[in-house]
Amino acid sequence: MAEDKLPTRAEDFGEWYNKIVLKAELADYAPVRGCMVVRPYGWALWENIIAVLDKEFKATGHVNAAFPTLIPMSFFEKEKEHVAGFAPELAVVTHGGGEKLEEPLVVRPTSETIIGHMYAKWIKSWRDLPLLIVQWGSVLRWEMRTKLFLRTTEFYWHEGHTAHAAKDEALEEMYRILDIYEDFSIKEAALPVIKGTKSDTERFAGAQITTSIEAMMQDKRALQSGTSHYFGQNLSKAFEIQYLDTNNTLQFCETTSWAISSRMIGAIIMVHSDDQGLVLPPRLAPIQAVIVPIFKSEDEKGRVKEVAGRVFTELKAAGIRVKMDDREEVTPGFKFNDWEMRGVPVRIEIGPRDVEKGSVALARRDKPGKEGKTFVQQAGLASSISQLLIEIQASLLARATAFRDANIHDPKSYEELKQVVADGWAFSWWCGSKECEARVKEDTKATTRNIPLNQPAGTGKCIVCGENAGKKVYFAKTY
Amino acid sequence: MAEDKLPTRAEDFGEWYNKIVLKAELADYAPVRGCMVVRPYGWALWENIIAVLDKEFKATGHVNAAFPTLIPMSFFEKEKEHVAGFAPELAVVTHGGGEKLEEPLVVRPTSETIIGHMYAKWIKSWRDLPLLIVQWGSVLRWEMRTKLFLRTTEFYWHEGHTAHAAKDEALEEMYRILDIYEDFSIKEAALPVIKGTKSDTERFAGAQITTSIEAMMQDKRALQSGTSHYFGQNLSKAFEIQYLDTNNTLQFCETTSWAISSRMIGAIIMVHSDDQGLVLPPRLAPIQAVIVPIFKSEDEKGRVKEVAGRVFTELKAAGIRVKMDDREEVTPGFKFNDWEMRGVPVRIEIGPRDVEKGSVALARRDKPGKEGKTFVQQAGLASSISQLLIEIQASLLARATAFRDANIHDPKSYEELKQVVADGWAFSWWCGSKECEARVKEDTKATTRNIPLNQPAGTGKCIVCGENAGKKVYFAKTY
Repeated sequence: MAEDKLPTRAEDFGEWYNKIVLKAELADYAPVRGCMVVRPYGWALWENIIAVLDKEFKATGHVNAAFPTLIPMSFFEKEKEHVAGFAPELAVVTHGGGEKLEEPLVVRPTSETIIGHMYAKWIKSWRDLPLLIVQWGSVLRWEMRTKLFLRTTEFYWHEGHTAHAAKDEALEEMYRILDIYEDFSIKEAALPVIKGTKSDTERFAGAQITTSIEAMMQDKRALQSGTSHYFGQNLSKAFEIQYLDTNNTLQFCETTSWAISSRMIGAIIMVHSDDQGLVLPPRLAPIQAVIVPIFKSEDEKGRVKEVAGRVFTELKAAGIRVKMDDREEVTPGFKFNDWEMRGVPVRIEIGPRDVEKGSVALARRDKPGKEGKTFVQQAGLASSISQLLIEIQASLLARATAFRDANIHDPKSYEELKQVVADGWAFSWWCGSKECEARVKEDTKATTRNIPLNQPAGTGKCIVCGENAGKKVYFAKTY
Repeated sequence: MAEDKLPTRAEDFGEWYNKIVLKAELADYAPVRGCMVVRPYGWALWENIIAVLDKEFKATGHVNAAFPTLIPMSFFEKEKEHVAGFAPELAVVTHGGGEKLEEPLVVRPTSETIIGHMYAKWIKSWRDLPLLIVQWGSVLRWEMRTKLFLRTTEFYWHEGHTAHAAKDEALEEMYRILDIYEDFSIKEAALPVIKGTKSDTERFAGAQITTSIEAMMQDKRALQSGTSHYFGQNLSKAFEIQYLDTNNTLQFCETTSWAISSRMIGAIIMVHSDDQGLVLPPRLAPIQAVIVPIFKSEDEKGRVKEVAGRVFTELKAAGIRVKMDDREEVTPGFKFNDWEMRGVPVRIEIGPRDVEKGSVALARRDKPGKEGKTFVQQAGLASSISQLLIEIQASLLARATAFRDANIHDPKSYEELKQVVADGWAFSWWCGSKECEARVKEDTKATTRNIPLNQPAGTGKCIVCGENAGKKVYFAKTY
């Protein structure tokens, strides 16, 4: 059993994370190198993420579609930077239907190329713009070091691809999506992300501007949790995505692409969970409240189960995602641990004395032990629990924000920067040069995360070289 | 423009179908052999199909999950019939990350093997059963002759995979799903399908029993629109899916698998559409009603648009999927044709006289011309349209059912059978022998579709050989 125990975060953060993923049954290792199986509980979490984002995208005029999984190899060679970025990571289909293919096909690592090809076919005039398409699915990148949810050979995501007539519209789209990502992260996932622009070194292959949201994990590493890219005319020139403008002149489109992937689940786990296991934000949790009936005699069982059943029905009717754990082959104590491991925000205990008193015991997942335990009346329980779920959601966000802010430093010297990024982030003036960025990486393994859109007033001196610097940037070690 | 014109069904049914798919912008040919791009309008239709089925599966205890797209080649060799069925259709990844793989990986043509592998890992005891998992996604089969939606190299579907302790539970599951498929087809897609059991020849590779729903297209060919399979212990023995029963004895699981794919969209198109274009059943239509404002002067425009806007808001609030077509660069006539081609069930015309009279003109897509046109009051319009959508849905089902029933024959001799299957289905007694089945196929190209669950009383003589026959079967040419 020892090997099965969850280590504490302090003991082994990496192993703590892996074990939570496996023991909470979010995902499992697949029998294919670097791939994962997303198990039903993990997929239910992902479906809740999809539901929120899909609604938001549709509300802002986007539509979904599906493009092929396989892409002709030659498509990747049309855009130089793009192919250079992805060539080492491609999985290649060389045989189909028992024969060697004339041209190898690539399992999509991202779909700019094939979508660009179709856009060139579909877009004729300004009337066809903007074209705002999202694809939900999976992509494949041959990763060397993999980690469940964070970096797997196949991963799940949406990829948005948009084409516009004007540069400012495309830029606006890129930032609109970044705002949607930020809103989602903060309000739904309780992740206090920072939005900003990537350095040239960290830019997406082929893009002119890459923006990102970055989150701090409990080991103080950064996790890039979503990206939104502006391609300018790079892609439209490579794929001849052109339109006739209102003067009947042929113009190249301006395009964007953007994505949030299943690594968002990794962020949620690594930001909120504790040494007892997974902690999930109520708004995304597949199960928001679990009912554990407690009884000894058959007589108690009858009375407890009646109340538990009524509570279940009431909560369900109120739209709370509630689960009844009426397993008889395991003890209540086993169930407590089990649902704690799975991160269910609220546990509802109902025993014979609760039946008598017309009450139930509520245990908050985010505050283990006595601190998180209250007794409330059965009357009005749905509303008490709805309120409690809101409190837990807010409390997780506040805790993560406080943790992040306590671990972002403003070092006064390069020496101090080297110290702080060993166990935190540095927020420092940077001249913008690749040399200074590379030096930090070499000395500390920390990279630039992003140049936040929200900048302090004024200018400063580059923390590395001392030259004038117009912007501050986050340096951090990253996943 | 001639090549762009929609042929009539009588002129060229195949080309009529292809053109509708392209002109209604449901799908397009992809730049990868045999693959399609499902365009936003087609995907919105598929999302409506997903929504209904997903809800139904969840209501019956199923959960969703995601398994890898790539499957080790060796997995296919574990079950003899299964590999024989799929080997000729596989797309094979031989290179990953720039290197030749030690073992080739297959892009999944179906996921019994990899899911079976995981089930063997997850299932320990009777407590873990039944395990009822559904995966929504795409699969790849290297098809020689392809047709948009009906048969493409990559297609979209769900695949359900369930493991049970007892044979009767697995059989019950297979039939439960078949019932869900039938209900969905009839109530949502307005397709009067017939559910039954496949012959041994037509069985799914590796299954012990295959059941299907079969629909009749307007060219009187059959389309297999969904299948539900019982594997017995074939799969569990190949993949060692075992559980400890309540006596602590190791047993093999009984398994099922089942699927409906994006070919369901092909069925919807080929059953309901007409020479003007697509006709969609209201319950699945991405747009249920389209508003076309009609005006000449600026003054008229103002008054018409005000009413149109109000109508739009009211219908949307009532949960009707309504679209406002306020394009100014095209005429109302163009819009009428455009939305007819796209199969929108109801068109709402609002002109200056309608504004005066407090009315609107409604045009039913399923009854082109004057027959389908009515004038109704703006007051209570949401309820009038909801009612009309219900009527259209019922009318499409009635029409398809009448058409099907008129084209199912009960031939009195084998000679007559040969005649009727040239342009219809035969419903005939069959002795069950492969020889008789093969003879019909050789003589007529018609195959057995299914042995319907709903059988007439008594027995008869095989329509081919004259021997005693216990069941009747459908013979038809098929897609």
